[in-house]
Amino acid sequence: MKYCSDCGSRVWSQVPEGDNRQRLVCENCNTIFYSNPKTVVGAIPIWDDKILLCRRAIEPSLGKWTLPAGYLENGETLAEGAIRETKEEACASIIDLTPYAVINIPHINQVYFMFRANLAVATYAAGAESLEVKLVLPEDIPWADLSFPSIRQTLKMYCGDLQSERFHFRMYDIVLDK
Amino acid sequence: MKYCSDCGSRVWSQVPEGDNRQRLVCENCNTIFYSNPKTVVGAIPIWDDKILLCRRAIEPSLGKWTLPAGYLENGETLAEGAIRETKEEACASIIDLTPYAVINIPHINQVYFMFRANLAVATYAAGAESLEVKLVLPEDIPWADLSFPSIRQTLKMYCGDLQSERFHFRMYDIVLDK
Repeated sequence: MKYCSDCGSRVWSQVPEGDNRQRLVCENCNTIFYSNPKTVVGAIPIWDDKILLCRRAIEPSLGKWTLPAGYLENGETLAEGAIRETKEEACASIIDLTPYAVINIPHINQVYFMFRANLAVATYAAGAESLEVKLVLPEDIPWADLSFPSIRQTLKMYCGDLQSERFHFRMYDIVLDK
Repeated sequence: MKYCSDCGSRVWSQVPEGDNRQRLVCENCNTIFYSNPKTVVGAIPIWDDKILLCRRAIEPSLGKWTLPAGYLENGETLAEGAIRETKEEACASIIDLTPYAVINIPHINQVYFMFRANLAVATYAAGAESLEVKLVLPEDIPWADLSFPSIRQTLKMYCGDLQSERFHFRMYDIVLDK
């Protein structure tokens, strides 16, 4: 960010009065610009013991398998976002959403919020951002071809909980090795 | 937003190719600007059956009682954000953080994430954004003088769970009456 989005003047980095972090501030109108983490919402859609996975048609991780997930949009609740992403990426409808996992990824300023959910009907297809969509048994998850660490971790926790038949809400941090 | 923060040219609202929402797009460099909900993180800090409340020294809700909470910053996990906010607003250290509630407020593009936590020691004081900070018994919560619906809801759920002595993770939506 180089220019003020309100007046078009240059911005510079400073610690505003009463703050303790560097922010970008307009040299003309003094507007302060804050940058905050984004929320990614998604779901583990289940049908008959199988999990609905999507193969990504876009970068990053083009060609890799993933769960339906994407950025929460303005005006949405987390559940509405997960329902929309599942509709967009897998042309599928989910019901019975239960909060399942929060995954912090501070080095890329993201927080994932994942639900467990059931497919309303066994109808699905590749959306614009997917190459293919399919239902897989837990033992058939393509672990070597998953899209992101957050998706791997979500599926790992889910498969662990399947063993114990006890699902509970979880929080997990993905941090860079220092 | 009127100007591109990358090149300083005008932006205009359009639905970018492959998207289904209006976004602001630069007429010169075609950068697309996304606006997404913000996460507010906070805590219910407990000491000896009492809850630590802060009286706000800033608008909005100046003079009203609140729980330590504020915007999640880049580079933080949710727990780190709640610890920082409690330090900043109440000069207090919290430990044993347990995810407690997510509150969606879609009409203001916010998601609250609240933890239950214990004070590490019974040391606290008003930070720069607080007029005073005190420990109150649940029966002494100033319900008529609380800051925000999200804080009221969090405390209401907590006090309900105290009755049953059963705390569980909750999700709640605050929506405008249509």
